[in-house]
Amino acid sequence: MKKLYGLGTGPGDPELLTLKAVRIMKEAQVIFAPNNKGTNMALDTARDFIKEKKIVLIDFPMGRVTREDYIKAARIIEGEIPDLGNGVFLTIGDPMIYSTFIYIMDELKRDIIETEIVSGIPSFVASAGASKMPLTVKGDNFYLCDELDEEKIEVADSLAILKTFKNKEDLLDLLENKNFKYKYIRKVSLEEEAIFERREDILEDENYISLILARRNQEER
Amino acid sequence: MKKLYGLGTGPGDPELLTLKAVRIMKEAQVIFAPNNKGTNMALDTARDFIKEKKIVLIDFPMGRVTREDYIKAARIIEGEIPDLGNGVFLTIGDPMIYSTFIYIMDELKRDIIETEIVSGIPSFVASAGASKMPLTVKGDNFYLCDELDEEKIEVADSLAILKTFKNKEDLLDLLENKNFKYKYIRKVSLEEEAIFERREDILEDENYISLILARRNQEER
Repeated sequence: MKKLYGLGTGPGDPELLTLKAVRIMKEAQVIFAPNNKGTNMALDTARDFIKEKKIVLIDFPMGRVTREDYIKAARIIEGEIPDLGNGVFLTIGDPMIYSTFIYIMDELKRDIIETEIVSGIPSFVASAGASKMPLTVKGDNFYLCDELDEEKIEVADSLAILKTFKNKEDLLDLLENKNFKYKYIRKVSLEEEAIFERREDILEDENYISLILARRNQEER
Repeated sequence: MKKLYGLGTGPGDPELLTLKAVRIMKEAQVIFAPNNKGTNMALDTARDFIKEKKIVLIDFPMGRVTREDYIKAARIIEGEIPDLGNGVFLTIGDPMIYSTFIYIMDELKRDIIETEIVSGIPSFVASAGASKMPLTVKGDNFYLCDELDEEKIEVADSLAILKTFKNKEDLLDLLENKNFKYKYIRKVSLEEEAIFERREDILEDENYISLILARRNQEER
């Protein structure tokens, strides 16, 4: 058998790697990551721990990725890991949250390759820490989405919205109407980290690696 | 100024501590944790890294904890950290998710003590990895709660329910009626970790440190 680890590198600061992530990378023979025009944020985060390793960047088409693409990725991975060896597929954040790895895992041949997940710190968790905005407290709930939907916000006490670059103005309007306070966190844990609370600042920023945390205004505890 | 770190120790396996968590604990003069009858899971997780440190267990009453209790905890923390020194308050999982630290942070005197959060792997993230059940994929949403509410489940694509020890039978009925598949994860990342999918097994288990992950049945992708 061969083994593939789906490994979360966290939000970007290499110090937010877990001890396990570091050990598993050091023990692996080959490191995989999606190819984003020759770069990859997860790879940047892990760089100091994989200097001696074979690195295989896997191409995915721009725009819509199909099941065929994931199957192709799975075949490449199966071919590159040596017999009885270990490979690591890097994902930013955590492998079980909005990651490519979820789809690739489904296409691996289970008779020749086993998989294991190494959890990472999700960006919304790091953002809550950086902004000191609780994700959720006793009796409350938390809602995570990559596109906001009015019906869904109704039931949430607090929420994280990823991909905030689309329709930011509508999103802030909706949050204000529904009595949420919000913070916008850009590139959490990286040098360029910034936290904005003012509507104008949020609308001006155009960074892709950003998210909004929101929390329903409540009576003083 | 003094400094207090709210530090997440993750789900229990010491290898799931981040590199930053280990460094911050090593640099601190005093370690705080809630006193659970003389023990504390976060303290157990961190044990190897705080052997030489002063450890202060803070008592909270059984049952309902009031604001007065958090104020008392804040005063103890302010008193125990030496001038210009660092303290660390340990929480299982992440400090911004269902933790005592959220309330204590609110009561600290900002002119004498500054705070910083060191994120940890939440138990529901580790549980998704252990059970290989994605928390959420592109276009989907994820919902986290500590008590299930029928209205809220309507809008969720996937969910994690903590505190599953109460009304487990009603909870499973509701999930089945709403066409969710589910897994029950006990003591994730620890030696006693177990994952149950069968209703009977789930109902029989009575561990406090457990949660349910559920995902709405969907058409094959």
